[in-house]
Amino acid sequence: MLTLSLAQLDFIIGDLSGNVTRMAAAARKAASDGAQIVVFTELALTGYPPGGLLGEQGFLARADAALMKLCDASRVAPNLYWVVGAPTWPRSDKVLENSLLVLKNGQIVLQYAKQRLSACNVFDERRYFEPGPDVVASLEIGGLRVGFLIGGDAWNDEGKEGMHNPLDRLAAKNPDLVIVIDASPSHVSMRRERHARIAAASRHHGFPMVYANQVGGHDQLVFDGASFAATPNGIVFEAARFEETVTTLRLQDGAFLGVGAPPAAGLLLMEFYRRQIVLGLRDYTLRCGFGKIIVGSSGGIDSALVLALAAEALGPENIIAVTLPSRFSSMGSVSDSVALCRNLDIKLFEHSIRDLVATYEQGFNAAFGEPLRWLALENMQARARGTVLMEYANQFGALLLATGNKSEISVGYCTLYGDTNGGLAPIGDLYKTEVFALSRHINETAGRELIPEAIINKAPSAELAPGQKDSDSLPPYPVLDTILKILIEGKHLCAEEQDELKAAWDELAGTKDGVALITRVRQMIWKSEFKRRQAAPILYLRPQPSGGRFPVAAKHEHITSAVPAFYGGAHRTS
Amino acid sequence: MLTLSLAQLDFIIGDLSGNVTRMAAAARKAASDGAQIVVFTELALTGYPPGGLLGEQGFLARADAALMKLCDASRVAPNLYWVVGAPTWPRSDKVLENSLLVLKNGQIVLQYAKQRLSACNVFDERRYFEPGPDVVASLEIGGLRVGFLIGGDAWNDEGKEGMHNPLDRLAAKNPDLVIVIDASPSHVSMRRERHARIAAASRHHGFPMVYANQVGGHDQLVFDGASFAATPNGIVFEAARFEETVTTLRLQDGAFLGVGAPPAAGLLLMEFYRRQIVLGLRDYTLRCGFGKIIVGSSGGIDSALVLALAAEALGPENIIAVTLPSRFSSMGSVSDSVALCRNLDIKLFEHSIRDLVATYEQGFNAAFGEPLRWLALENMQARARGTVLMEYANQFGALLLATGNKSEISVGYCTLYGDTNGGLAPIGDLYKTEVFALSRHINETAGRELIPEAIINKAPSAELAPGQKDSDSLPPYPVLDTILKILIEGKHLCAEEQDELKAAWDELAGTKDGVALITRVRQMIWKSEFKRRQAAPILYLRPQPSGGRFPVAAKHEHITSAVPAFYGGAHRTS
Repeated sequence: MLTLSLAQLDFIIGDLSGNVTRMAAAARKAASDGAQIVVFTELALTGYPPGGLLGEQGFLARADAALMKLCDASRVAPNLYWVVGAPTWPRSDKVLENSLLVLKNGQIVLQYAKQRLSACNVFDERRYFEPGPDVVASLEIGGLRVGFLIGGDAWNDEGKEGMHNPLDRLAAKNPDLVIVIDASPSHVSMRRERHARIAAASRHHGFPMVYANQVGGHDQLVFDGASFAATPNGIVFEAARFEETVTTLRLQDGAFLGVGAPPAAGLLLMEFYRRQIVLGLRDYTLRCGFGKIIVGSSGGIDSALVLALAAEALGPENIIAVTLPSRFSSMGSVSDSVALCRNLDIKLFEHSIRDLVATYEQGFNAAFGEPLRWLALENMQARARGTVLMEYANQFGALLLATGNKSEISVGYCTLYGDTNGGLAPIGDLYKTEVFALSRHINETAGRELIPEAIINKAPSAELAPGQKDSDSLPPYPVLDTILKILIEGKHLCAEEQDELKAAWDELAGTKDGVALITRVRQMIWKSEFKRRQAAPILYLRPQPSGGRFPVAAKHEHITSAVPAFYGGAHRTS
Repeated sequence: MLTLSLAQLDFIIGDLSGNVTRMAAAARKAASDGAQIVVFTELALTGYPPGGLLGEQGFLARADAALMKLCDASRVAPNLYWVVGAPTWPRSDKVLENSLLVLKNGQIVLQYAKQRLSACNVFDERRYFEPGPDVVASLEIGGLRVGFLIGGDAWNDEGKEGMHNPLDRLAAKNPDLVIVIDASPSHVSMRRERHARIAAASRHHGFPMVYANQVGGHDQLVFDGASFAATPNGIVFEAARFEETVTTLRLQDGAFLGVGAPPAAGLLLMEFYRRQIVLGLRDYTLRCGFGKIIVGSSGGIDSALVLALAAEALGPENIIAVTLPSRFSSMGSVSDSVALCRNLDIKLFEHSIRDLVATYEQGFNAAFGEPLRWLALENMQARARGTVLMEYANQFGALLLATGNKSEISVGYCTLYGDTNGGLAPIGDLYKTEVFALSRHINETAGRELIPEAIINKAPSAELAPGQKDSDSLPPYPVLDTILKILIEGKHLCAEEQDELKAAWDELAGTKDGVALITRVRQMIWKSEFKRRQAAPILYLRPQPSGGRFPVAAKHEHITSAVPAFYGGAHRTS
């Protein structure tokens, strides 16, 4: 029998000595559970992703010293194998590798470098690391042959993409168990993908696998943990999501003893969003050194949802709401904010911007002999609010949150240096239709009206002009969100979601108005790229964020046909 | 004899049909010059770098169609070989390559994929492309064996970094000429590095080489062109910098006929900065669809320099300056702006923010029963100005420029959503000491006082508090800039600059106060990373921009010793 502990910890990036301490504590627990192996996660030593820290003066030397300290710590339980992720530079000073090390009783007994580095979407590993050589890493532990891989190395067992398959090379050595360490950021369909890939690989090769994933919020990324074990029969164990855990598993004759298969479906979508945002928001706020959060409360649903989530993340006593009415604000702007903050038990400040708006208007009129109007007037109000909110942030030493959603951010329906202000945009990856759904979910799980129905039911409006409604400028949100999902995320979505969207798309693309609308939305996405460069960083929740990597000063050719990529992979026209 | 034309063109990213037209026109000129080969640059078809465009719906299909159109165009001069850069996906739908194609009379006669993709610093090729296979690409043209490489493939002829050396593989085939196509962003020491690498390779292998580089501004990157030819004797020809050119060269018996070696030193540093900023600013502004530029004129040197450069880039008639005095502004704030704009022939608006500041203060006082003070008061003024400037930008349909310099941006001596507002920060990669030097240079080359001496000579101040000076919060700029250069750019600097800095560093690091100062500057860099995420994008001018890739919510361990990386490469402590 082999006993091993999966340690999914919330490491702090750059906190080398703290991370060593965290690992040593988990190893003590593992040893007291009788474990022969304790498994930490990818780049556990530095926290993942360390990004530019790796190039910082002296950082690698300090990482190396911390590794030696960890190695020393391993003497405490001389029979325990520690599986640890750390940066190493074994081949030359210029070649850095993303490595898995096995430590035992003060020695490094195995070192393996990740071969399939991730560089798509949120990943940037190929910027910092070189791929490791094509080798197989395994050790004889407790009479069993244990193989080791890192993240993406186990991710290509289908051998697709014409690429290298390190798992297949390892399988040729007939291991009794394969341990995969990873730092896999969470998004809506990630859990399913991980289970599918690893379960298929276990079934295909006929050996059990364990998969250890880090947990915690690191800037825009949130890691859900959910470490798991698979046998050829499927997923047989899953650790908690969004929590630190150290779980000890016992493997005998290829089966894990006393474990139960997790539910196939996992969290409901809205509950997933809630937990991911709360963890990401809490870790980001505290690690930036803030204990308090400021949110501008417009009386609309976006800021209401952000306030509810912030209250859950930091406690209502640490949240400060500010309602900033202008002459264009509806009655509900203040009264709904009052009801909301009463429900959430949050302190609310009322700070009118009427005088500010009037003063800006007088200044403009004096300069140009004409009134400030239209978009310029709307933008100015958003910026006056943004400026006042930053005064509150300064006054309370608090972090300002931006309240934009993915639909707005995607099409640029927001004011740069105004409502895009903030250190983080916690719902910036939620479509507006999902903002409604999550708000309802929060009320349902609370069993009472935390977010007032009046806020959920009112027609969305920026309230920057008389009687303004979002629907004056944008298509209805259900239509907009369908178009955005296909354009931004089409090929990344799961098959079921694609099928749903295809029907909606076919209907739209079949009419002249529909085609014109799709073209207009594409252009709005393009034209607002400059805003996303300077807007508050969003917390990632979905497979593909809106833009962010498009050239700004580029030409966008007129697009006559717009066929979603998931209609077929053939790009080649000749 | 072999006749070939180097076409360094200013492609527009995403403008596939326009780029085809640009290449066809250059090919006509080459053909009329009697050329047998016309050489375009890396990813000429899409413009470089296409970034996220490569993943955009249908973009690759359109790129492929454009390539076919270019291929068709090559029938016009049936004997001319066209060397073209384009994305291709020859091995599977998922593997995209950064390729060099040779077209002739409607056919693709050679296709080669870049092997050494760039992913450090400003480059992001490994995100989008897979490295090409280890093959040698050459053709028999006019009785000579001509080899082909792309950018970084020719960049490792020393075989350093334990990495692959495609040039060496090619050399084994004894080519008579090697053609390298590149898109090499310009920075202060880049020209020297290119010359050194290619001249050394030519000498080492004993064959002539030509190097074609694109020109033009693409968002934060500027390409200087400066295509050149080398023989074993050294650099024998260089095309103009910062300009489009099509130059025809004749090669006979391993020598280029009728060419003259360029000066070793190239442009003086300040002239280099001036030309790079002017080109980058012009291309960015026009390609974003703007004809006019707005700059807030503080009466200080940063905004004065930005105004002078903007006037050169777009013409003074297209520049709008706004002076925004507050009660903390010195007399010179307005009068120096007036003198500056008169010298530059730029229209100046005066727009006091006194009433705005007072209104913000009243609102704050009403909310908290205390005056708005210190940093919060300073920030508010910067944000009020930023808001008014955006009103002007909206009113004139103009692009607002941010005026921050590299010293300020590096340590976060700036107000987010205030003076960091703007579509581009044209001097954001110039240290403050360089801002003074470039301002003097501009006056000298003009032969008159474009930037008033009063502006150059006054002590730097943000003028956000009574009698405030930058030196109240920051070390003197010469000291700060020395520290910043070492911390940010140390290992990227050329040997001479490193030697100069080492002496200054040793002096600082030898005293307790000096060490404390270095530590303080490091912490300021860390703590301001969140600002750089949302500040205006800077135009790159130097080897390494300030931050931008550091984790924000990270722990920065206390740094007791700070040894610059250029003091030795050994990281390993055990």
